[in-house]
Amino acid sequence: MSRLDVTEKIITAKVMKGLKWADVAAKLNLSKEWVTAACLGQMTLNAEQAKIIAEIFDLSDEDQKWLMVTPCKGSLPTAVPTDPLIYRFYEMINVYGTTIKQLIHEEFGDGIMSAIDFKMDLQRVADPMGDRVNIVLNGKFLPYKQF
Amino acid sequence: MSRLDVTEKIITAKVMKGLKWADVAAKLNLSKEWVTAACLGQMTLNAEQAKIIAEIFDLSDEDQKWLMVTPCKGSLPTAVPTDPLIYRFYEMINVYGTTIKQLIHEEFGDGIMSAIDFKMDLQRVADPMGDRVNIVLNGKFLPYKQF
Amino acid sequence: MSRLDVTEKIITAKVMKGLKWADVAAKLNLSKEWVTAACLGQMTLNAEQAKIIAEIFDLSDEDQKWLMVTPCKGSLPTAVPTDPLIYRFYEMINVYGTTIKQLIHEEFGDGIMSAIDFKMDLQRVADPMGDRVNIVLNGKFLPYKQF
Amino acid sequence: MSRLDVTEKIITAKVMKGLKWADVAAKLNLSKEWVTAACLGQMTLNAEQAKIIAEIFDLSDEDQKWLMVTPCKGSLPTAVPTDPLIYRFYEMINVYGTTIKQLIHEEFGDGIMSAIDFKMDLQRVADPMGDRVNIVLNGKFLPYKQF
Amino acid sequence: MSRLDVTEKIITAKVMKGLKWADVAAKLNLSKEWVTAACLGQMTLNAEQAKIIAEIFDLSDEDQKWLMVTPCKGSLPTAVPTDPLIYRFYEMINVYGTTIKQLIHEEFGDGIMSAIDFKMDLQRVADPMGDRVNIVLNGKFLPYKQF
Amino acid sequence: MSRLDVTEKIITAKVMKGLKWADVAAKLNLSKEWVTAACLGQMTLNAEQAKIIAEIFDLSDEDQKWLMVTPCKGSLPTAVPTDPLIYRFYEMINVYGTTIKQLIHEEFGDGIMSAIDFKMDLQRVADPMGDRVNIVLNGKFLPYKQF
Amino acid sequence: MSRLDVTEKIITAKVMKGLKWADVAAKLNLSKEWVTAACLGQMTLNAEQAKIIAEIFDLSDEDQKWLMVTPCKGSLPTAVPTDPLIYRFYEMINVYGTTIKQLIHEEFGDGIMSAIDFKMDLQRVADPMGDRVNIVLNGKFLPYKQF
Amino acid sequence: MSRLDVTEKIITAKVMKGLKWADVAAKLNLSKEWVTAACLGQMTLNAEQAKIIAEIFDLSDEDQKWLMVTPCKGSLPTAVPTDPLIYRFYEMINVYGTTIKQLIHEEFGDGIMSAIDFKMDLQRVADPMGDRVNIVLNGKFLPYKQF
Amino acid sequence: MSRLDVTEKIITAKVMKGLKWADVAAKLNLSKEWVTAACLGQMTLNAEQAKIIAEIFDLSDEDQKWLMVTPCKGSLPTAVPTDPLIYRFYEMINVYGTTIKQLIHEEFGDGIMSAIDFKMDLQRVADPMGDRVNIVLNGKFLPYKQF
Amino acid sequence: MSRLDVTEKIITAKVMKGLKWADVAAKLNLSKEWVTAACLGQMTLNAEQAKIIAEIFDLSDEDQKWLMVTPCKGSLPTAVPTDPLIYRFYEMINVYGTTIKQLIHEEFGDGIMSAIDFKMDLQRVADPMGDRVNIVLNGKFLPYKQF
Repeated sequence: MSRLDVTEKIITAKVMKGLKWADVAAKLNLSKEWVTAACLGQMTLNAEQAKIIAEIFDLSDEDQKWLMVTPCKGSLPTAVPTDPLIYRFYEMINVYGTTIKQLIHEEFGDGIMSAIDFKMDLQRVADPMGDRVNIVLNGKFLPYKQF
Repeated sequence: MSRLDVTEKIITAKVMKGLKWADVAAKLNLSKEWVTAACLGQMTLNAEQAKIIAEIFDLSDEDQKWLMVTPCKGSLPTAVPTDPLIYRFYEMINVYGTTIKQLIHEEFGDGIMSAIDFKMDLQRVADPMGDRVNIVLNGKFLPYKQF
Repeated sequence: MSRLDVTEKIITAKVMKGLKWADVAAKLNLSKEWVTAACLGQMTLNAEQAKIIAEIFDLSDEDQKWLMVTPCKGSLPTAVPTDPLIYRFYEMINVYGTTIKQLIHEEFGDGIMSAIDFKMDLQRVADPMGDRVNIVLNGKFLPYKQF
Repeated sequence: MSRLDVTEKIITAKVMKGLKWADVAAKLNLSKEWVTAACLGQMTLNAEQAKIIAEIFDLSDEDQKWLMVTPCKGSLPTAVPTDPLIYRFYEMINVYGTTIKQLIHEEFGDGIMSAIDFKMDLQRVADPMGDRVNIVLNGKFLPYKQF
Repeated sequence: MSRLDVTEKIITAKVMKGLKWADVAAKLNLSKEWVTAACLGQMTLNAEQAKIIAEIFDLSDEDQKWLMVTPCKGSLPTAVPTDPLIYRFYEMINVYGTTIKQLIHEEFGDGIMSAIDFKMDLQRVADPMGDRVNIVLNGKFLPYKQF
Repeated sequence: MSRLDVTEKIITAKVMKGLKWADVAAKLNLSKEWVTAACLGQMTLNAEQAKIIAEIFDLSDEDQKWLMVTPCKGSLPTAVPTDPLIYRFYEMINVYGTTIKQLIHEEFGDGIMSAIDFKMDLQRVADPMGDRVNIVLNGKFLPYKQF
Repeated sequence: MSRLDVTEKIITAKVMKGLKWADVAAKLNLSKEWVTAACLGQMTLNAEQAKIIAEIFDLSDEDQKWLMVTPCKGSLPTAVPTDPLIYRFYEMINVYGTTIKQLIHEEFGDGIMSAIDFKMDLQRVADPMGDRVNIVLNGKFLPYKQF
Repeated sequence: MSRLDVTEKIITAKVMKGLKWADVAAKLNLSKEWVTAACLGQMTLNAEQAKIIAEIFDLSDEDQKWLMVTPCKGSLPTAVPTDPLIYRFYEMINVYGTTIKQLIHEEFGDGIMSAIDFKMDLQRVADPMGDRVNIVLNGKFLPYKQF
Repeated sequence: MSRLDVTEKIITAKVMKGLKWADVAAKLNLSKEWVTAACLGQMTLNAEQAKIIAEIFDLSDEDQKWLMVTPCKGSLPTAVPTDPLIYRFYEMINVYGTTIKQLIHEEFGDGIMSAIDFKMDLQRVADPMGDRVNIVLNGKFLPYKQF
Repeated sequence: MSRLDVTEKIITAKVMKGLKWADVAAKLNLSKEWVTAACLGQMTLNAEQAKIIAEIFDLSDEDQKWLMVTPCKGSLPTAVPTDPLIYRFYEMINVYGTTIKQLIHEEFGDGIMSAIDFKMDLQRVADPMGDRVNIVLNGKFLPYKQF
């Protein structure tokens, strides 16, 4: 699967050049969250975006074409993540998942919060007790319909 | 495991009485997110809180004591959740997990976002294209330290 | 989990009374597909529907209330289904899943076919070589959006 | 396993040349569903078909021979699919699988819907609320027989 | 799941009464293989057969009705069987499965041997070196078709 | 593991040369079932047999030596097979496994049917309703002994 | 599954009465290894043996009949054992399994050591550095045969 | 992991040269069981032993150094072994594991049989009914201690 | 498994009576670590200890006997723990496990740190930045021996 | 993932040069525990540290840059470790995990012991009965907070 190869090239180039995702995102006029996901092989770029990314990371024309193909998504190597940072989010679902389900149903009725019509925003919040990470997940509510 | 029995009693009483989590939370002067998690067997209540919960859900004295014991946490019956609403959050981690990891490290360096020194807020956001769910995850950044 | 108990009661009553799902559905003026899913514990009924179902299957008032609560969905006991009829559908995904992915992306671009804004229709098609099952899956296309 | 290599070559050639599955299918006078599955390593081609595919994707004579060998089928890398588009179909089985089982048995008695004597048709359906994906699954009913 | 209860009743009655599957089968004028599978909860009986089985094993009218409902099939508690006798058959598939695949495809082309339009016969074969078990598996070949 | 490499060479040579397993077997004066299993890396050949196989498939002297080493057996990549043809045999065990167990114990007492002192025969059976696959499994009964 | 119930009754009676497996075995004139396995639900007893066991452990007539039925074997609740004593044997297979395979093949050729025509003997061996457990596994070699 | 490479080199050299483990062991004046395990990457050799092994199998100086590093142990590719010979040992634990546990505790009290302070001896035992494999497992009993 | 029932009784009694493990341990003149493990069903008590425990937790004579039987150990319901506190220890092994392996081998050579001849001590350490948990794991080094 | 390549280079260089982790740590003026973990790909080094490590292990400039990138952590290839030394620590969690949970909650209330604000110290303790490994785990207690 060649998109994986392009992802590895991007990551290697980023490490070697000392680039920042926020700067890459700025060049595309898109959020750092979406652009990082795209560079990590989770999103599809259009021709213009693929060209910019290719320039930033010294990618070939072939690589550029792969960036424009919808990838096979899913960025984790195991069903339960082993990396401590990522695991904490899995744990949040394990501890608070049924809570989230109850509260969304209480507010909206039967349905789900979309993970497709979805956006995410991640910010540092200064705090004298130690700075905090603030992540906003925002997704459309999709109701189950009777038929 | 007796805390599970208390959780089932609470859920059954809620269904039979037609209660709302938001109203239960209001009686404890705490967020609906924390209180729902506590009622679902994920958090520990103090004596005063346990008494209020017991009154709301018609729990026995024994049940009340169980509410004050730190529970064995984790509310999902399978490693990969099968309920569509909860699965969407698992999918967010699968698709955006490596993105979150990259962005937190870019901003803070090596470490994690705490799932313990953590709070969550869930709100409905009106939208003419269909209302949206907005979830804020807020956790302290904990750096790995050299030793 | 009490919704499970109600589901078992419904199935037992259906077997004992010799009812048909199509007839149950007719009483609700809804499709047999949605009504069967609801009776099997996958959908949420409104008060009026729950009352009709309760009458058909001799359910108690408590049972009736459970029918109106959004259930924890997922009707299969194992990740890979063992029942031969259900397994065939799992096999279709295994053999044709990547094909479906390619064709939807070719037609619509990056996104998914919704399993929530979704309906299903199952019919017998007479055929001299042996009658056939015809299943129509119809779901809204949801595009990934840049942000 | 060399058929995998041929599949990878086909996918790469398609990306580089910007081909469409529908156009490839037209050259074989077969459905886009069957042809895509065949190109993705799930079906067996005859000599004439293999020749056409080889020309389209610049395959070698050796590759062409592999296309005519019955492949080891199954196109998903994990038991539970991680790609969001493919997962939605797994979720449909999880939510509606027991419903489908009930309705087929109600209509046909004990048996299964064949995944071999089977065809599939995928179409875009225009809809002012957002276009929809319509997938028709059509398989022969095979009854269990007493012996 | 009530069919399971009926299966347990049948097994217990068989042990207590010292019955033989071959004798049970004789009363239904069917093979011992099909009848045993039916009694173990894998096949559906018609009204007349269910009545005979109910008499043999002292089942109630309710039990009799369950015998006439298509069961949820699959008789093994784990994906890889632990019982030594059953495991040997799993091992045969592991060691000879690819061989069977090659030989069926060599003889018939692409397709499968049906496990539905299928029958099985199990016999003791006397042998001076130690008697042998002889099992004949007989299933219709179902070809994949182009569409 | 080098035996795997030899197996791949054999399969590739067979595809390229258009050989048939039945013809290969004829050259060894052994059944097509055993010879195919051996070529697929499940059985051990003696020097004379390895020489014949090496000639047929253009193998090197090193390859020939590997054919004479007892291999690490087991030809399936996953615990539950995904290939539809092979899965049907797994399903037979799932549906009929407890039946086979009951019938062997009824006939022979406690013990197993050997998968080692075992042979298999696979034949096409002409049938106007569609030809059938007939597989005979023949294994020695091995009783558990008290000690 | 009723044999499990009999096993639990036997274990409970043994604990309450303070019996020793060696003494139970002596009453059957069989090894402590076989008798313990039989009492733990892994072996089949004849009528006379079942009667003696029933007397020792105060079992009912029904229980006695279950002891004479070939059980569904396999005494471990998980694929990888968690009990430290039993795990050590799993570890021996993990560390020395390929060694055992090599040495048996070197001595006997292709085949297996039977786990059915098998006996086991477990003894304490006094040792000034700490007493040792000595376990002898003795099984018939079964060769793979060509056919 | 380079020790794996050395193991593969050793196995390949053994096959090509037609060596026997027993002869290799003789050159080290150690048991064939320990030496085979060491050659298969499970044990650590000292400098002198590594030199002898390197000469026998034509290993490089680098390979020799790897033999002297404590390896990451565990020689099986799957949790439940698929090779029939190795599986039989897994089955012995499954059938007799609880028996072994009971008998060791009856004789020694709470503790385990060490898999580290452990030795193993494998011998052929001639038998007119078919030769047998005799394996002696000998490990120190380690008691749990109160503290 | 009756020891589980005794464990549940002990935990329930502890919650109802508001006891502390440290106080229970004091009555046995043993560490709180060992006594808690014993009460949670992981260790074997002698007659005198079982009597004291039975008095503290109001256990029956039968319960008392179960406390004196070596239990089937392993206190976690899933292979990867879901409770956040326990998971952190699993994570320590995942992150630092290979480090511990390297350092023990560097210091001691090939072998293991015993989990049987083992003791553990858990203390609170006051710290102005937030109190800390200090856990000392102390186990005998057991060397692999050549044989 | 290139950090893995750097880890392999470090391990290979260490074996070839006969280095000791303790000596490497001394050059960084940090503990052997942290430095080993960092060299094994679990920690992030700063520029100065990466330079020293690169010199010790003859790493390239590119490798040096990878050492400064936060790695994807988790050093074990399987969920349940197979290496005997590492498994013992998994077993400690399995046997003592619930004990640790009880004692920490008894002392501190609801919360966890951090695996991030954490340090570890591993020492040999001389003992006439056989030297012992002494491991001190020291982590900050993090309380769950109400919100």
